[in-house]
Amino acid sequence: MTQANPFRPALAKMLPYAPGEQPPPGSCVKLNTNENPYPPPPAVVEAIRTAAGGPINRYPDPMATSFRRAAAEALGMPGPEWILAGNGSDEILTILVRGFVGEGQRLRLPYPSYILYRTLADIQGASWEQTPFEDGWKLPAEFAKSDDGLRLVLLPNPNSPSGTIVSPNEVEKVSASLTCPLVVDEAYVDFAETNCLDLVKRNENVFVTRTLSKSYGLAGLRFGFLVAQPHIVAELTKIKDSYNCDAISIAAATAAMGCQEWLADIKTKMNTTRAVMQSRLSAMGFEVTPSHANFVWCRHPDGNHKAIYEFLKQNNILIRYMQFADWGDGLRISVGTDEQMESCLSTIERALQS
Amino acid sequence: MTQANPFRPALAKMLPYAPGEQPPPGSCVKLNTNENPYPPPPAVVEAIRTAAGGPINRYPDPMATSFRRAAAEALGMPGPEWILAGNGSDEILTILVRGFVGEGQRLRLPYPSYILYRTLADIQGASWEQTPFEDGWKLPAEFAKSDDGLRLVLLPNPNSPSGTIVSPNEVEKVSASLTCPLVVDEAYVDFAETNCLDLVKRNENVFVTRTLSKSYGLAGLRFGFLVAQPHIVAELTKIKDSYNCDAISIAAATAAMGCQEWLADIKTKMNTTRAVMQSRLSAMGFEVTPSHANFVWCRHPDGNHKAIYEFLKQNNILIRYMQFADWGDGLRISVGTDEQMESCLSTIERALQS
Repeated sequence: MTQANPFRPALAKMLPYAPGEQPPPGSCVKLNTNENPYPPPPAVVEAIRTAAGGPINRYPDPMATSFRRAAAEALGMPGPEWILAGNGSDEILTILVRGFVGEGQRLRLPYPSYILYRTLADIQGASWEQTPFEDGWKLPAEFAKSDDGLRLVLLPNPNSPSGTIVSPNEVEKVSASLTCPLVVDEAYVDFAETNCLDLVKRNENVFVTRTLSKSYGLAGLRFGFLVAQPHIVAELTKIKDSYNCDAISIAAATAAMGCQEWLADIKTKMNTTRAVMQSRLSAMGFEVTPSHANFVWCRHPDGNHKAIYEFLKQNNILIRYMQFADWGDGLRISVGTDEQMESCLSTIERALQS
Repeated sequence: MTQANPFRPALAKMLPYAPGEQPPPGSCVKLNTNENPYPPPPAVVEAIRTAAGGPINRYPDPMATSFRRAAAEALGMPGPEWILAGNGSDEILTILVRGFVGEGQRLRLPYPSYILYRTLADIQGASWEQTPFEDGWKLPAEFAKSDDGLRLVLLPNPNSPSGTIVSPNEVEKVSASLTCPLVVDEAYVDFAETNCLDLVKRNENVFVTRTLSKSYGLAGLRFGFLVAQPHIVAELTKIKDSYNCDAISIAAATAAMGCQEWLADIKTKMNTTRAVMQSRLSAMGFEVTPSHANFVWCRHPDGNHKAIYEFLKQNNILIRYMQFADWGDGLRISVGTDEQMESCLSTIERALQS
């Protein structure tokens, strides 16, 4: 007497989110998922080793208090109650969608951008709408329009795949005309010159999400966080699993917050590499979108992006070929070490000549 | 023009789940959240230290393949496709409720048992019903009744707070008369003599959840998993965050699966302590429910359980005082080291005399 399909109908209809390829470590030059090519700060590795010998038979602190204190201090926020720690910013995004968008309701994202938001809406049995960027990756007026069914607006800033950034001033204007919360996904913001933290301080409807995966070189650790006004953090705490962050990653992430000088140095180093990448790609005839993130989005007038991607892959260099329906395609290349970039760029030159 | 409350109505109505108290490590004899009093296997600590020096700047394996292989082998399951790894079995339970129970639908649990399931239903905007155990912690016939709105049935087995277990034969009968999936939450099963893994092999509607928090001494690591037929695992994979388990916990959990001899030894040791606890508590006049888990549930005819709990707390010994509406109260005491038990039991004796 079993049901044919016991799953919620929303799941049967949806396609799973497909993350970028993850080949075995060391098997190729990996420039496809915007990881940091450098190891994390030594203090973080040391914190993990110390925590391994600590009381890991005991449950961790459910609220990751040490991390929240360190993060509030590092970011200049008023206190730990403005921070919610998560198992990667993916978990924070999941919690936000579960907190605000019910079955039959809707979220909004710009296009092209991070398609994970669509998957999160699909899982909820909610819907999503994409507002296309205007030329030059500007937000159109429609992005700031409200209606009753719209429950959450998400803006990756810097955006992927473009690497472009919308100014805090512009974000504030969008938020002012929305009746629902606006999430500014700042996964890449440590490589940019502006951010929206001040906006969070004075606006209860603007939330910022961050991750340690990119700038801190900790994609393997799964640690991200939300910055929002304390009553928002308190209510969202109901949704998270009690012990959503483990003792080892809490220790590591707390240590990472103490490494602001390391962070400034890695930013300088990677943004210098990024500048070289951009000028080399331009010299090859690519249209390069000036980037504020740790990747570069480029398109070649000759247009065979997929062939370039395939040629690189045959040469053990993995970049991201991205195709967006009704929009077009292009290549997204993560900023690697100078040696990796030399290898990647010279192989692209060969691809163009072949 | 902002909405008064932008959160989903389901959240405004619900109370958050309150996990057991987590005082600072070392500040008391902690017997309130069923942690293992012993450190994890040395091979696990070593695996964490090694992973700390590995490529943690890279994303982890999204499917935790090394762990799934090791778990399938350790448990005698046909292959890794029968296993889904999670950030604690809490995450697995969240995924299950999100997978099967939509807004306005219902899940069922026995009573008294693990009230987290109720919270998970609340978050979904779903409802829950509790079926009271019969005398002797037997499942009543109503627990196996189906109707259209019922989408998931959850059975902690061994149960908490009772430590009692329902036989695989009985679980199979329940499943046979349900039209929805039955989740057997085996968080404590490594301290018992039976489990439901064979049932999963021949029944697509029976799922088992496991955790490394209790028997493996890894509550701080957050690692749990689902055992279910491959098409169930595949569909639920859509719901989990892409990288839900981090590189370090995957390495640690994989190592833990290789420590089956260590596990057998810890079971013998802790169950021996449990037997001593049970007879000592009986000798003090407690009604002790024979336990198949790493804790003991007991009630004293004199009945002032709360006073005993408070007396112990004043003496820096933390156990769990539990009160269930329309049912009654009692004490749940985790199995600690022999030294911790001696301290706890002699303090209870003093409490009874005072």
